[in-house]
Amino acid sequence: MERDRAEPLGVPEGHRDPEDEDEPVSSSPEPNALDRWLVGQLTSRLDAGRVRVVLWDEPEPAATDHLPIAVRIGDRKALRRVILHPDLYFGDLYAAGRITVHGALLTAIDEAYRFTAQKTAPLAKLLRGRKIPTPDLVDSRRNIHHHYDIGNDFYKLWLDREALQYTCAYFADPAMTIEKAQQAKMHHVCRKMRLKPGETVAEAGSGWGGFALFMAKHYGAKVRSFNISKEQVAYARDWAKREQLENNVEFVEDDFRNISGKYDAFVSIGMLEHAGAGNYRELGRLIDRVLTPEGRGLIHSICRDKPQPLNPWIDKRIFPGAYPPTLREMMDIFEPNGLSVLDVENIRLHYAETLRLWLDRFEENVATVRSMFDETFVRAWRLYLVGSIAAFLRGRLQLFQVLYARSGANDVPWTRAHVYEHDD
Amino acid sequence: MERDRAEPLGVPEGHRDPEDEDEPVSSSPEPNALDRWLVGQLTSRLDAGRVRVVLWDEPEPAATDHLPIAVRIGDRKALRRVILHPDLYFGDLYAAGRITVHGALLTAIDEAYRFTAQKTAPLAKLLRGRKIPTPDLVDSRRNIHHHYDIGNDFYKLWLDREALQYTCAYFADPAMTIEKAQQAKMHHVCRKMRLKPGETVAEAGSGWGGFALFMAKHYGAKVRSFNISKEQVAYARDWAKREQLENNVEFVEDDFRNISGKYDAFVSIGMLEHAGAGNYRELGRLIDRVLTPEGRGLIHSICRDKPQPLNPWIDKRIFPGAYPPTLREMMDIFEPNGLSVLDVENIRLHYAETLRLWLDRFEENVATVRSMFDETFVRAWRLYLVGSIAAFLRGRLQLFQVLYARSGANDVPWTRAHVYEHDD
Repeated sequence: MERDRAEPLGVPEGHRDPEDEDEPVSSSPEPNALDRWLVGQLTSRLDAGRVRVVLWDEPEPAATDHLPIAVRIGDRKALRRVILHPDLYFGDLYAAGRITVHGALLTAIDEAYRFTAQKTAPLAKLLRGRKIPTPDLVDSRRNIHHHYDIGNDFYKLWLDREALQYTCAYFADPAMTIEKAQQAKMHHVCRKMRLKPGETVAEAGSGWGGFALFMAKHYGAKVRSFNISKEQVAYARDWAKREQLENNVEFVEDDFRNISGKYDAFVSIGMLEHAGAGNYRELGRLIDRVLTPEGRGLIHSICRDKPQPLNPWIDKRIFPGAYPPTLREMMDIFEPNGLSVLDVENIRLHYAETLRLWLDRFEENVATVRSMFDETFVRAWRLYLVGSIAAFLRGRLQLFQVLYARSGANDVPWTRAHVYEHDD
Repeated sequence: MERDRAEPLGVPEGHRDPEDEDEPVSSSPEPNALDRWLVGQLTSRLDAGRVRVVLWDEPEPAATDHLPIAVRIGDRKALRRVILHPDLYFGDLYAAGRITVHGALLTAIDEAYRFTAQKTAPLAKLLRGRKIPTPDLVDSRRNIHHHYDIGNDFYKLWLDREALQYTCAYFADPAMTIEKAQQAKMHHVCRKMRLKPGETVAEAGSGWGGFALFMAKHYGAKVRSFNISKEQVAYARDWAKREQLENNVEFVEDDFRNISGKYDAFVSIGMLEHAGAGNYRELGRLIDRVLTPEGRGLIHSICRDKPQPLNPWIDKRIFPGAYPPTLREMMDIFEPNGLSVLDVENIRLHYAETLRLWLDRFEENVATVRSMFDETFVRAWRLYLVGSIAAFLRGRLQLFQVLYARSGANDVPWTRAHVYEHDD
């Protein structure tokens, strides 16, 4: 823990709505007939046995045993916005404290989702023909900077303390700590790839370097890891030196699309979400180009059961340009490029658990987060974490690990039993 | 073994080329300059270090250490046909003995494939826009009758003797017999589905009933199994009676598209290849309709890494209307129908091993097969079995097991470790 080193970072650009500032909650006039009718429309689509909604003429309500969730909408503009574009504005209004939730936020998010799904079903049909984001090199740099460069100290407050993994853990045993589960995740990936000492690995997306260093330390691999987050690369290089692994692991501050050389394995954990579905064929061509004949690899990504654009608030405030693909869409990587899928595992419930443990630690350190940023940032991140738990628990998001090799390569595992034969 | 009961069945309709009969091999005149040029064209695309090709003016050649494969083309028409349409005619000409192969047939098939791939590459591009077969109920009955109704006694000569499984086995240990490996396959599928006593199962495609009876006997399941092969259903019903499982397993002589009721699991082993990619959405709708809320299932199918029509000889003589889909094409079952993929396993090398053991037993019983049918039938089936070994070994065919459940259902296995924790 480096809590002592934390200092105010200021709220990064793009993480909030400038309108929040000039809209004091107290300024709204008394609710009128239209306001009452609108809130009636809203509550009629929620589970009346679970949710109570009050307006700005009432004080903050309390959740009760009978009505486990109480929501207060703090001003007229908030009411109109959340009804018109719930999937975009609920997040900002909640973050700004203009909508408050009492009771379990997770349950409230389930209800918000129920409302949004009913409201946007016809719209969602239209959106099927939407443009899936296809970020170019410049877009990617901007998108990645937005999320990953807001401060290493912030992430260190709530991620696992050993490997700083900001991706789904693997709870081989459900009682594992987040530290153990992240180690288990990394072993799981290396075992699936049957990584051996001296083998070369290309990694697309390093995070803070934890997995690259793990592969070098525990499996004797030589790793080149690519990342376009300046802050993360600086951190990773420093970490490699501290671990005296700088001869085994090279952190390259560049886009994965510029990877060159030949590697025994090509691995990517939690990067595909940022690559853009329109770039998957190019990613596959790159894998085909850099992989040795008996090479293989694994792609670990947040996915969907069916195509759907990212929630617009998450896209605007949290992960600009991100897109969780379907398994069908992922096939663009493999099918046109002579690659064969060996194994697909869906561990979405492990991501719900990962996020739950992250949230616990976030709340333990919330005062520090508040002092680094402000209350709006705290509320936005709380909503993002709880919302993600809900999405993985309800199956709106999936987490796939896809193991692959060249089509027709026969040096592949005979069964998957070896992944489960070990003591840790 | 029921070898004693075997009696001549006659060659079933559609399994051979009528022209074979009226084309005596000896009738060809001496090879001329064009014949020589054509055979030169053919051999120039083969590995000259491995294959020697002679024409009908020479006696049957012998394979040697230096030239492991020797091929004799027996008449002029055979030469012209195999050059123009190798992927269609090689099979018929080999079966009729008008082309003979000395040395390892598997290696010869690799060479034939090399020739065909070069020859048909431009054609294959055109075929990308081909119509994938979408058999209706009538087509399906005709197609299934063609292959599966040629005689239970014939299949009993070379399939495993315990469960008569005509699908890929699972060699948990590579040294397993085919009997053990088929039992292991069925356990593997039931463990993946976590099948429990008293649960109801719908099976699409029964074969001779081995898996349905296995689920009832070893997992206490109540099974309704659908099949349109008259001979197989009659056999399966009789078998259920012998095992006193007729109250637990019902064999329905009907198309899987007519399945009704509600089931805890929907399973299909080796049927999807016959369903037609154009019918996958309907299959998925059916699964959605008949599955309980916490229901799940598994589809086990021969697949491809990328879309390609079935080999035309196999399509014409062995499996009319069959089509091995890609994983992407399989997603038509799940994605539009609220189903979530939990686990995909590719066990193509297990199918190569399964076929190798089937072939061994086929050759042990070849005299009986010849007495049931004739030499042409023997040669056609030998080619089909060896050709299939080659296809799985080289990665031209894959074998996927896809485990699925309803999107968002949380009563799913936490990890896959339970599949590997057992003693058999």
